[in-house]
Amino acid sequence: MTPGSLKPRSAEEQALLDAELVETFEQRISFNQMLGLKIASVRPGDIRATLAMKPELVGHFAHGRLHGGVISAVLDALGALALMAAIGERHPHDSAAQVMHRFTRMGTIDLRVDFLRPGLGRHFLATAEVLRLGGRIGSTQMRLLNDAGTLVATAAAAYTVA
Amino acid sequence: MTPGSLKPRSAEEQALLDAELVETFEQRISFNQMLGLKIASVRPGDIRATLAMKPELVGHFAHGRLHGGVISAVLDALGALALMAAIGERHPHDSAAQVMHRFTRMGTIDLRVDFLRPGLGRHFLATAEVLRLGGRIGSTQMRLLNDAGTLVATAAAAYTVA
Amino acid sequence: MTPGSLKPRSAEEQALLDAELVETFEQRISFNQMLGLKIASVRPGDIRATLAMKPELVGHFAHGRLHGGVISAVLDALGALALMAAIGERHPHDSAAQVMHRFTRMGTIDLRVDFLRPGLGRHFLATAEVLRLGGRIGSTQMRLLNDAGTLVATAAAAYTVA
Amino acid sequence: MTPGSLKPRSAEEQALLDAELVETFEQRISFNQMLGLKIASVRPGDIRATLAMKPELVGHFAHGRLHGGVISAVLDALGALALMAAIGERHPHDSAAQVMHRFTRMGTIDLRVDFLRPGLGRHFLATAEVLRLGGRIGSTQMRLLNDAGTLVATAAAAYTVA
Repeated sequence: MTPGSLKPRSAEEQALLDAELVETFEQRISFNQMLGLKIASVRPGDIRATLAMKPELVGHFAHGRLHGGVISAVLDALGALALMAAIGERHPHDSAAQVMHRFTRMGTIDLRVDFLRPGLGRHFLATAEVLRLGGRIGSTQMRLLNDAGTLVATAAAAYTVA
Repeated sequence: MTPGSLKPRSAEEQALLDAELVETFEQRISFNQMLGLKIASVRPGDIRATLAMKPELVGHFAHGRLHGGVISAVLDALGALALMAAIGERHPHDSAAQVMHRFTRMGTIDLRVDFLRPGLGRHFLATAEVLRLGGRIGSTQMRLLNDAGTLVATAAAAYTVA
Repeated sequence: MTPGSLKPRSAEEQALLDAELVETFEQRISFNQMLGLKIASVRPGDIRATLAMKPELVGHFAHGRLHGGVISAVLDALGALALMAAIGERHPHDSAAQVMHRFTRMGTIDLRVDFLRPGLGRHFLATAEVLRLGGRIGSTQMRLLNDAGTLVATAAAAYTVA
Repeated sequence: MTPGSLKPRSAEEQALLDAELVETFEQRISFNQMLGLKIASVRPGDIRATLAMKPELVGHFAHGRLHGGVISAVLDALGALALMAAIGERHPHDSAAQVMHRFTRMGTIDLRVDFLRPGLGRHFLATAEVLRLGGRIGSTQMRLLNDAGTLVATAAAAYTVA
């Protein structure tokens, strides 16, 4: 319990939290910035990001498709983002700063990626869903689609949360 | 069966294959080049690569540690490299070009990464082991250690091979 | 191409295939029979099975909940069943026997199970979805719910298909 | 800190703990009992169990091999056993009862099994290794070999520990 905890976050504070989440996942995680990840929605239940193809992200030189490591990185990031948004919703009285502080204690336990189809396309859409947010562990599922709407990859991950 | 297939690869041809593997995994996969992956050994049973920390590879801004996506990318690449080296050994009569041609048909089916400890360090060592090389599927395990010898992550992956 | 392959399976032949799938997954796989797995639907896009709790299936003695190995076994079976149903749909001219013959060559490559919540309940519902059916590899996602509709576990698996 | 915590467990108390671990994993987990799992060693760094083939454990009727669900169950159990043995070692002043109490709060977060080769054999050997035991999460790797020494399956799992 902290000062201000008796009433839920104001719309302004929520907007600040949303902006912090976008800033963190797009800019402060320098590898995400290098990838060019753009966060499209941080609303709980609708977590979305986009990625534009560029030469540095190519894996299989013979085919010009997205590197599996890029796919893994993006889907891992989206799972963490989905949990952060869910944590914000679970703690409606916390300030943006208090919610963001929890991020510094979050870590990926493990990640499984299923590479279903070649990562071909000019743009990709990544989404994430929280399957369970416990007091210590959060579990998520993620999807990557290309600009034709083809399912390129799915993933599941577990994270420590605090 | 192809011309020249009756005798095993010469030392020169093997050296050419080794150089092709290094060149492919370091340079032609542009994402690996961006990461700065350096292949240290392509000998079957001793697959090793190194990675130097640099600002673009940081994940958790608060901690300055290696991004999980970088770890995933490096370990996925090492598993594929281990299988390529094993394929070369299984087809001792194939030319370097014939072995490399098989790489164009290889793909990661799925990858699991266990993030055991924070990716802290100036240099990292990645290794891979082939658990099974079948006619259609190859399975590998991988490890990432930091420069203090601490086990940072392990991974398992399955690949289509041809 | 085989005699009779020019026209799609008759309703009788499809019913025979459906019955073969149920018989195989309920009876011929003796471990499934021991578990008491009951196949509720083999229609592509709607793969469902049920499992009734019984003392032999308990894992954690202190809590009386479903053993993780039971959950893994059931979800692995459901993924294979979903692929068999999809294979039947992909080969509409094959007889039931021809489709079932493909099952003898199917194998699980790997399975990941996320144990989200305790497996508490008297009955459980397992479902499976095919994410991709290729010529050599099939990928699926599975879910287990208890009789309160709570999501107990999710899984992803890859299989060799022929 | 509890009475008696100032000196390490006696040889008798350690023998009691070892016996409790064997009893728990062989008898109290009724599904393990049904499988016929026999614990061969609970010494940290040398966790081993055996399993004898029997008709109820067969998966693929056409081939008479061990069911994947049996493999998953056994390897999940071995990972948990390895962590319990490690927890006992980490808390050398705890009584057997105190160590066993921690088991009631342990749970599998997720499990990945790689099915490398057919589970053919009359006897199987399962082993487990702790990769990391943290305050909240434990990570393990497991292996299953048949009586010819062939590696049948490998697995990785994460558990909550307390």
